[in-house]
Amino acid sequence: MVILGIDPGSRVTGYGLIARKNGKLVYVASGCIRVGEKALPERLNTIYLGVSDIIRQYSPAEFAIEQVFMARNPDSALKLGQARGAAIVAATQGELPVSEYSARQIKQAVVGKGGADKTQVQHMVKHLLDLSGTPQSDAADALAVALCHANTQQSLVAMAGQAKKTVRGRLR
Amino acid sequence: MVILGIDPGSRVTGYGLIARKNGKLVYVASGCIRVGEKALPERLNTIYLGVSDIIRQYSPAEFAIEQVFMARNPDSALKLGQARGAAIVAATQGELPVSEYSARQIKQAVVGKGGADKTQVQHMVKHLLDLSGTPQSDAADALAVALCHANTQQSLVAMAGQAKKTVRGRLR
Repeated sequence: MVILGIDPGSRVTGYGLIARKNGKLVYVASGCIRVGEKALPERLNTIYLGVSDIIRQYSPAEFAIEQVFMARNPDSALKLGQARGAAIVAATQGELPVSEYSARQIKQAVVGKGGADKTQVQHMVKHLLDLSGTPQSDAADALAVALCHANTQQSLVAMAGQAKKTVRGRLR
Repeated sequence: MVILGIDPGSRVTGYGLIARKNGKLVYVASGCIRVGEKALPERLNTIYLGVSDIIRQYSPAEFAIEQVFMARNPDSALKLGQARGAAIVAATQGELPVSEYSARQIKQAVVGKGGADKTQVQHMVKHLLDLSGTPQSDAADALAVALCHANTQQSLVAMAGQAKKTVRGRLR
């Protein structure tokens, strides 16, 4: 099962794909969609087409994106929102279920502490996925949200298994 | 030529369609896309599909949307940005040219003063398009941005005609 993580931005949108193979999480691909200096409609269209192309190419089963609780200022929040809207519509049009995780949840899942900095996230993404080089910052953030989603799903599966066992135990 | 005006919002997105017939601007249709209490991805998908459906149904040649200069706070800016992103991607995917106008430009074009309030905009939209009833607030705002676009285009055409005349005058 391939998971697509997206780190949207008004200038650069990072993407990261990971898969679960024999119970292990492996790296599939990652990179950036750069929108350059085009006008807003073309920038948003580039994000939409970029994410749609990735979905067609890698056929992910799930889509994870960072949840934004509090943006720095109204202007950057509006720009981030527009990029986020374009990316999420690409996911829903690709019929992918969308999961959102807070920055704290992502850092907790990848580094083990919610207050970790960007360098620690990059380092742990490289380590966890056994990469030879350090991924670019936006690509690393996208891989981190995909890893967070994979771990959360795994925990839920484990918890569901545990709950099943308990119920079975009680039934016997 | 049909013009589609959009007033995006995280809960309600207004739309308004007008056309130029024999040099006069006439009302075609207007209404609201309501996203209800669904999760964010479904809300954005509803806006995207709603705007796409309107484009398919009325085949507008142009798309106009209010430009947001300064949102009230980061949280509402993010939500508005997401809705805006979904609506603009529907336009670019429908191969429509997108024009943006500030609230001031829209009020100036419709009411004649940049500082007009919502009620004045509703009243003038009703008057200019010869409507029997007052349109709902978001639909009125969408019709206002379509009217602003039509008037701006008309002025540009007039100016281009004027420039042509001047050039011709000089050539003779």
